[in-house]
Amino acid sequence: MVPEVDRNLFREVSYGIYLVSSFDGNRKNGQIVNTVIQVTSDPPCFAVIINQKNFTHELISSSKRFGVSVLKDSTPFPFIGLFGFKSGRDVNKFENVGHIEGASGCPLVTDHSLGVMEINVTHTLDVVTHTVFVGEVVFSKTLDDGRPLTYEYYHVFLKGKTSKNAPTYNKET
Amino acid sequence: MVPEVDRNLFREVSYGIYLVSSFDGNRKNGQIVNTVIQVTSDPPCFAVIINQKNFTHELISSSKRFGVSVLKDSTPFPFIGLFGFKSGRDVNKFENVGHIEGASGCPLVTDHSLGVMEINVTHTLDVVTHTVFVGEVVFSKTLDDGRPLTYEYYHVFLKGKTSKNAPTYNKET
Repeated sequence: MVPEVDRNLFREVSYGIYLVSSFDGNRKNGQIVNTVIQVTSDPPCFAVIINQKNFTHELISSSKRFGVSVLKDSTPFPFIGLFGFKSGRDVNKFENVGHIEGASGCPLVTDHSLGVMEINVTHTLDVVTHTVFVGEVVFSKTLDDGRPLTYEYYHVFLKGKTSKNAPTYNKET
Repeated sequence: MVPEVDRNLFREVSYGIYLVSSFDGNRKNGQIVNTVIQVTSDPPCFAVIINQKNFTHELISSSKRFGVSVLKDSTPFPFIGLFGFKSGRDVNKFENVGHIEGASGCPLVTDHSLGVMEINVTHTLDVVTHTVFVGEVVFSKTLDDGRPLTYEYYHVFLKGKTSKNAPTYNKET
């Protein structure tokens, strides 16, 4: 008997939507993810999961730093399109996007963000096609009030799509 | 200058609420978590983050198996209290709780669940106080319609509390 895996259930797992940024020398990049999660409280550590094909993966692996922007539910589609469906190998995503620099120089995107965090990577875990990067929050700041964008709101209410590089991508749907 | 960490921002990160179960011989246990996340699409792998003090941590470490139940938003408080705020070292949490067994014998809790998954652990990552367990879904099944319980719904609308062993526990609030 082959055990049955019902992928419909995976859609009932809840996520937010974030912009994860990194850098390497003069190169900056960022991408949309649903994979930000707190790992420990003391010290405050978070994880992000990134596809090994992505340019942001290359930058985080090299700099050992990443930024997280918690996106607002009012984030416009063209902004998500720029960071979620284009590669930083082809376009400079930061050309017209508001951002600050963390202590390490890591870009932290402030446009459409409830707040930003800067994270120093302390652990990595290679899982087939993706890497789990875990690190300590060295800086975080709330920028605005509002509601965070959730994966459900983006998909169900805004009818947004999933990148083929996302852990939650399902080629059957 | 000491970089400033604003923990209020951490509350804007979105999560669901799940029951994670495991076993070892005749011993069964489960606990409430907010830390279930998909890591890869092909093969379908998920992670869960568990405090190293918890009995469920001992069982997953030993059996290399865990179950995930995606809880409904109608899950009653006494059920969350049993699995979220009592230790399986003191009480048998499974005495009166509906569950099935996965192929490995791992208990999968069906009460108040939209569905269940059985996961074989393939990778672990030790992060200070918690462990990230990653594994492949070997069985999953949708059991019922309804809405998943989210962390926001539990905290904001139901006024639920956070266990001191959770990654998101904040002693300041």
